[in-house]
Amino acid sequence: MEANVFNSMDYEEFVGKFGNVVERCPMIAAAVWSDRPFSSLEALENTFGDFIDSLPPSGKKGLLRCISDLAGRDMVRGTLSPESQSEQSQGGMTTLTLAQRSQLSELNASYKDRFHFPFVICARMNDTVTIIEQMTIRIHHSLERELETGIGEVKKICRLRLLDIFNQVAPAPSSNTSTGNGSRSGSQSLVFGPHPNRVNIDDFGPPCPC
Amino acid sequence: MEANVFNSMDYEEFVGKFGNVVERCPMIAAAVWSDRPFSSLEALENTFGDFIDSLPPSGKKGLLRCISDLAGRDMVRGTLSPESQSEQSQGGMTTLTLAQRSQLSELNASYKDRFHFPFVICARMNDTVTIIEQMTIRIHHSLERELETGIGEVKKICRLRLLDIFNQVAPAPSSNTSTGNGSRSGSQSLVFGPHPNRVNIDDFGPPCPC
Repeated sequence: MEANVFNSMDYEEFVGKFGNVVERCPMIAAAVWSDRPFSSLEALENTFGDFIDSLPPSGKKGLLRCISDLAGRDMVRGTLSPESQSEQSQGGMTTLTLAQRSQLSELNASYKDRFHFPFVICARMNDTVTIIEQMTIRIHHSLERELETGIGEVKKICRLRLLDIFNQVAPAPSSNTSTGNGSRSGSQSLVFGPHPNRVNIDDFGPPCPC
Repeated sequence: MEANVFNSMDYEEFVGKFGNVVERCPMIAAAVWSDRPFSSLEALENTFGDFIDSLPPSGKKGLLRCISDLAGRDMVRGTLSPESQSEQSQGGMTTLTLAQRSQLSELNASYKDRFHFPFVICARMNDTVTIIEQMTIRIHHSLERELETGIGEVKKICRLRLLDIFNQVAPAPSSNTSTGNGSRSGSQSLVFGPHPNRVNIDDFGPPCPC
């Protein structure tokens, strides 16, 4: 998708496309629309991030509380958003052993008892082992640190969802731009590059200090 | 509903109950939860209002953009929220004449072209005639004035939705508190009083200056 495609959208089209980039918060996409035109995907991503950063602490906590537990009630009930269902699946949450499911359930409950928002992690950049490992570490952090970490994970999720949208609507390569190696398909972006199912954490800068 | 009922809810229960008090913005209810306990319905309502007021202008516009047009696409498609469907119906939007429907459609489009957010009015405090009348007046206002007016209408909608929730879950009167006149039913609140379908605008202070 070229920047001019999303810059030319009216707010209803824009919210229809980007409304769940921040889980269950279409208001944020609708607010971000005010800042168009965006020069690039990165500029769009940064505007989402800036809006999230502008929220008061209660708003940031509210945002986290709109995110479903990992392998939690929404997964059991089939009420995860399509994006969240895909992400949790890629993070191994649909193929847990009974022991892992039990451990995760206890950790989710303890984490929420302590912080009053759910444990949030970019599941696509992790797997079952690292997710459980991070929960056992992060549950001992301070509230302030976890709020910051959770919001940081929301931004990673946001970036990957944006990349997904850009890849879904990318045009097929024309015969004039064929690379001749057959490695590109119409489902991959010509502007922002292909989107791997598993993202290398190195793409996001230094590792999380936690 | 007594205050201790909603004060004792965990955030998931609270968002499940109050998540659409602000249309399609469960994050706001989830943020408001942080400020519990609330001493009364009014205190809860004020916390919603304070959070809305704390949003930057882009956030307020984003909030308005999450609200469906009156008698618009979502009504035609059947994708209005249950609350909005009920409100638009009470405001006469489901029984428009062909001429009114056409006039409203044109006014909706002109309003959005001018302000980049939809015309928002508390439909339950109006009827078809006053809604169209207000649209024809407000479309000539400044952006700043309409943003303020739209947010004011959101707060009226918010108040009525809160009252609805309180009335839905109100306990049936016990035999000890019977008024003996048979006028109260279990579906009406014993704490905040019955909720009329049509609300008297005088309950909300001085009339809108527009």
